[in-house]
Amino acid sequence: MNKENISKSVIRRLPRYYRFLTELEEQDIDKISSGKLAAIMRSTASQVRQDLNCFGGFGHQGYGYSVPALRDEIAKILGLNKRYKAILVGAGHIGTAIAAHLRFDMMGFQLVGIFDNNKEILGAHINRVEIMDSENIGQFCRDNGVQAAFLCIPRSAAKQTVKTLYDAGVTRFWNFTHYYIQGDYPEAVVENVHLSDMLMTLCYRINEVENSYDENE
Amino acid sequence: MNKENISKSVIRRLPRYYRFLTELEEQDIDKISSGKLAAIMRSTASQVRQDLNCFGGFGHQGYGYSVPALRDEIAKILGLNKRYKAILVGAGHIGTAIAAHLRFDMMGFQLVGIFDNNKEILGAHINRVEIMDSENIGQFCRDNGVQAAFLCIPRSAAKQTVKTLYDAGVTRFWNFTHYYIQGDYPEAVVENVHLSDMLMTLCYRINEVENSYDENE
Repeated sequence: MNKENISKSVIRRLPRYYRFLTELEEQDIDKISSGKLAAIMRSTASQVRQDLNCFGGFGHQGYGYSVPALRDEIAKILGLNKRYKAILVGAGHIGTAIAAHLRFDMMGFQLVGIFDNNKEILGAHINRVEIMDSENIGQFCRDNGVQAAFLCIPRSAAKQTVKTLYDAGVTRFWNFTHYYIQGDYPEAVVENVHLSDMLMTLCYRINEVENSYDENE
Repeated sequence: MNKENISKSVIRRLPRYYRFLTELEEQDIDKISSGKLAAIMRSTASQVRQDLNCFGGFGHQGYGYSVPALRDEIAKILGLNKRYKAILVGAGHIGTAIAAHLRFDMMGFQLVGIFDNNKEILGAHINRVEIMDSENIGQFCRDNGVQAAFLCIPRSAAKQTVKTLYDAGVTRFWNFTHYYIQGDYPEAVVENVHLSDMLMTLCYRINEVENSYDENE
């Protein structure tokens, strides 16, 4: 396997392969043809073969792909076997949803703390992880070697929070705010989630379909 | 302006242009050079000029772009001036966060109802929109001409809910579940939000950086 040769668009598809392969495995499906995998992936058999050839090609002529072997290999490429220490900042609705529902340990992370500045919820737990006072966030990160932070705070609080975290050695971010972290920290590794951008994209796509109806009338 | 010529990747960037232009306007900035806009967009001046030329080119040599004119034009292309009637299904943490924080009216939608099956929260309001009983969802959508649904429910409930909605004429979805709507309804317009895929992508990117350190040691 030569990682250098894997294109960005293949990488973006890998979590989806992983998710579908996990579901197949849960249904005790042991092997799958590239055609069937393509149907699940909303892709073509030749695209699937091309994607999977990037890292060795797990297919066997006339057999298809081994579901567990392929899933394990993709997990390894994504680094899901890692346990990067992470904290979640902001136990509002989004933060709580994420802390409660995502299986961090299956996605390369270990959630070691949740931070909020609402004194009333301090000491409570979400999925057995304690909510602690934001005032102690820098010290906690230094003491525990925290590498990543999931930012679920208002934008107004983001700049100062990221500064505190960065000074404490936290340089990887899952960013739900609209604060542009890379502008201040070009070396940071950031994955942004802009829900409003996604909603606008939906609006565009609806609009496009509605307009095509109009033109056909 | 010829919409047919606008590529998918330009479309994906439009919400970001719109977001940054809105911020500039809020700061009373009236014009901007392609270089400065490129810096904000983490792009190049030539990419920005190429993007914006797709729909008429609002730049003037030696002047730059008019922030309000460009923002308005992008809003029109995205269809943000529309008011597609939408409901939100599932008033858990994610649903509540979305209903409470997103400015639907600025993104082409009008949120006309929220639905949940938890009897204890029925009749409550989020942002002046009432939480109603999921049992009445089909009738409500038919009566009110609802076009879109934002699905913030568990995957186990998704298939049946989408069937009910589709039968009631709701065919556009913002889908936070892992249920593959297009598999059952190829005509549906769907924008999926897979938070776990995004977290896995972050893991991959951290892993990539960590590995490059190892190789340099």
